[in-house]
Amino acid sequence: MPLKPIDAADAAPEVRAVFDDIKATRNVPDVNNFWKMVAHHPETLKRTWESLKEVMAPGALDPLVKEMIFVAVSVTNGCAYCIRSHEAAARKAGMTDAQFGELMAVIGMANETNRLANGYQVEIDESLK
Amino acid sequence: MPLKPIDAADAAPEVRAVFDDIKATRNVPDVNNFWKMVAHHPETLKRTWESLKEVMAPGALDPLVKEMIFVAVSVTNGCAYCIRSHEAAARKAGMTDAQFGELMAVIGMANETNRLANGYQVEIDESLK
Amino acid sequence: MPLKPIDAADAAPEVRAVFDDIKATRNVPDVNNFWKMVAHHPETLKRTWESLKEVMAPGALDPLVKEMIFVAVSVTNGCAYCIRSHEAAARKAGMTDAQFGELMAVIGMANETNRLANGYQVEIDESLK
Amino acid sequence: MPLKPIDAADAAPEVRAVFDDIKATRNVPDVNNFWKMVAHHPETLKRTWESLKEVMAPGALDPLVKEMIFVAVSVTNGCAYCIRSHEAAARKAGMTDAQFGELMAVIGMANETNRLANGYQVEIDESLK
Amino acid sequence: MPLKPIDAADAAPEVRAVFDDIKATRNVPDVNNFWKMVAHHPETLKRTWESLKEVMAPGALDPLVKEMIFVAVSVTNGCAYCIRSHEAAARKAGMTDAQFGELMAVIGMANETNRLANGYQVEIDESLK
Amino acid sequence: MPLKPIDAADAAPEVRAVFDDIKATRNVPDVNNFWKMVAHHPETLKRTWESLKEVMAPGALDPLVKEMIFVAVSVTNGCAYCIRSHEAAARKAGMTDAQFGELMAVIGMANETNRLANGYQVEIDESLK
Repeated sequence: MPLKPIDAADAAPEVRAVFDDIKATRNVPDVNNFWKMVAHHPETLKRTWESLKEVMAPGALDPLVKEMIFVAVSVTNGCAYCIRSHEAAARKAGMTDAQFGELMAVIGMANETNRLANGYQVEIDESLK
Repeated sequence: MPLKPIDAADAAPEVRAVFDDIKATRNVPDVNNFWKMVAHHPETLKRTWESLKEVMAPGALDPLVKEMIFVAVSVTNGCAYCIRSHEAAARKAGMTDAQFGELMAVIGMANETNRLANGYQVEIDESLK
Repeated sequence: MPLKPIDAADAAPEVRAVFDDIKATRNVPDVNNFWKMVAHHPETLKRTWESLKEVMAPGALDPLVKEMIFVAVSVTNGCAYCIRSHEAAARKAGMTDAQFGELMAVIGMANETNRLANGYQVEIDESLK
Repeated sequence: MPLKPIDAADAAPEVRAVFDDIKATRNVPDVNNFWKMVAHHPETLKRTWESLKEVMAPGALDPLVKEMIFVAVSVTNGCAYCIRSHEAAARKAGMTDAQFGELMAVIGMANETNRLANGYQVEIDESLK
Repeated sequence: MPLKPIDAADAAPEVRAVFDDIKATRNVPDVNNFWKMVAHHPETLKRTWESLKEVMAPGALDPLVKEMIFVAVSVTNGCAYCIRSHEAAARKAGMTDAQFGELMAVIGMANETNRLANGYQVEIDESLK
Repeated sequence: MPLKPIDAADAAPEVRAVFDDIKATRNVPDVNNFWKMVAHHPETLKRTWESLKEVMAPGALDPLVKEMIFVAVSVTNGCAYCIRSHEAAARKAGMTDAQFGELMAVIGMANETNRLANGYQVEIDESLK
């Protein structure tokens, strides 16, 4: 009963155009299931891809750092698909095992101290205002 | 009725020892309210500080990247104190306005696409297994 | 080792009475696994069903809108079971593919802008107070 | 522009009846702002109070344990009002400073290890299935 | 130390152009603090506004329903600014007190049953696959 | 492509030492997959185990209460692995079916009332300040 992924062969022209741009930009033979599902709403597909392409491009932060930030958000939210796919993207961008290990350690500590700050109801320091 | 921050002057010796180590390690004149509140449970104070010191030390990832990951988690969780204090720490570690802007943009997009992946119930690609 | 669903045939009378009311109210031949699991605590089964029946009944909001709100919460929380079952309920209540697509788009944008508001630490406007 | 709390003096009879039951059950001179706000929707006020009264009553778990679980959820969700009010309720039910300290420590560790489990994408052990 | 809102008078031309479009589209004399803060990163300002304008426009769902979905996500995430500003937007789009009351009731129940589904580890029904 | 669990036989000496301490402390023949995955970063393995051992030890709160708090956090975060493994740990520590049922009921109610407090934007009572 859930929706099924839309393959390029069955896609409307405006969907195929986005798929083609993803494949060309990322130099991959096919797009991930994420895009094949979001393709059920072509406007969301186009807007999401163009936003992501702009946001994840090299800039003041390099692509590996951006992918690790993406992983940090996905792990905090518990999105299994996102963790899997962005861990893969981060490794493709050069993330080593040691970097992955430290990334997980920081994510874990941040989630812990966030709750200590909540639970102790810490007020913002004058020096931080 | 909530607990009050514990100042160094009123602190037990094992608390003061941790405060001293924080001040020396970070080269700051006083510790933040976070530590003065967690000091109500000296074991948690000591364990949390020692864990944080180990995790945030330079390693395979540099301290600025670690602070930005901390901000990404804190923003996703909506912890106002943590956002404020770790934004400050990231800026102290060299984060520019442009980097902050891109950090926010990546966090925003990741939170959006996490929910698109959830909502469309995307299955993990064979190539990612 | 986890608990198993309780089928009507094996259920205590007070559980069966709730199952019967769910089936009659929704005009379905059997109850979902959700209810067969919560049936392990009959008080919670009864209270949850009666609360849900009251809350989801037609009122100032129509049932389709209520089901879409339920989906929005479930997607934000990442509850896979809830997303699946309430997407099904929303479609049964008349949700079209186009409505589902827009629902996902709004959920995605809201999760993105929620984090931009957190990250930029936006203060409430005077005009909104 | 936001809604204002409804005081007993200005409340409709069905609201006042709930307020009276809260005051009698908890032996307090007035109800908290939470109830005065939810009173804007009398059905939700009545249903929420009756559900809470049933769920928080002494049973297989004692009231202090139930209040600490309430705090754990509220800290994890970052609900400032709920943390404040249920910390107060837990202290009224007998929670000591040492118990509060351990409660915070467990909440912190659970939030950390939840993310390590997510991030490392740990599969469920055969022995736990 | 945190960033300050950027007023139109002090804004770069590309920021002012977005502000002008927001004011014209919404027929308001000034933009909210949200936009004045995101204006620190003009690319994010432009992309977020254009995305939001597209997503929130009337379509298969009417604007009031979209604003209520926005509120549901914001309440679930606990974003105080977003709750305040989108409650205001929903009321401007016609939300009555009775609709607000039912909206809150549905959000509450969904958050409760999401956790019951998680906690009882409910498996997806064959009929929902 | 994801990491694989590290078995004791293939583990470095510092990893095996932690595994041995877990097995001895918990009196179990093998460690869970959680530890075999975190073992990819031996520093995180050691720090997390030692922290958890300290935090979960009997103290002002008994081990069963601590495990139930762990479950409450895990259910709220929706971490399936953590729910499964800590439900098992709580049952091993003596949790009855009736206690599990009440635990779920409290977690559910807390998640509901957290959102009602958010949505109604309840201000903290003077008596709670």
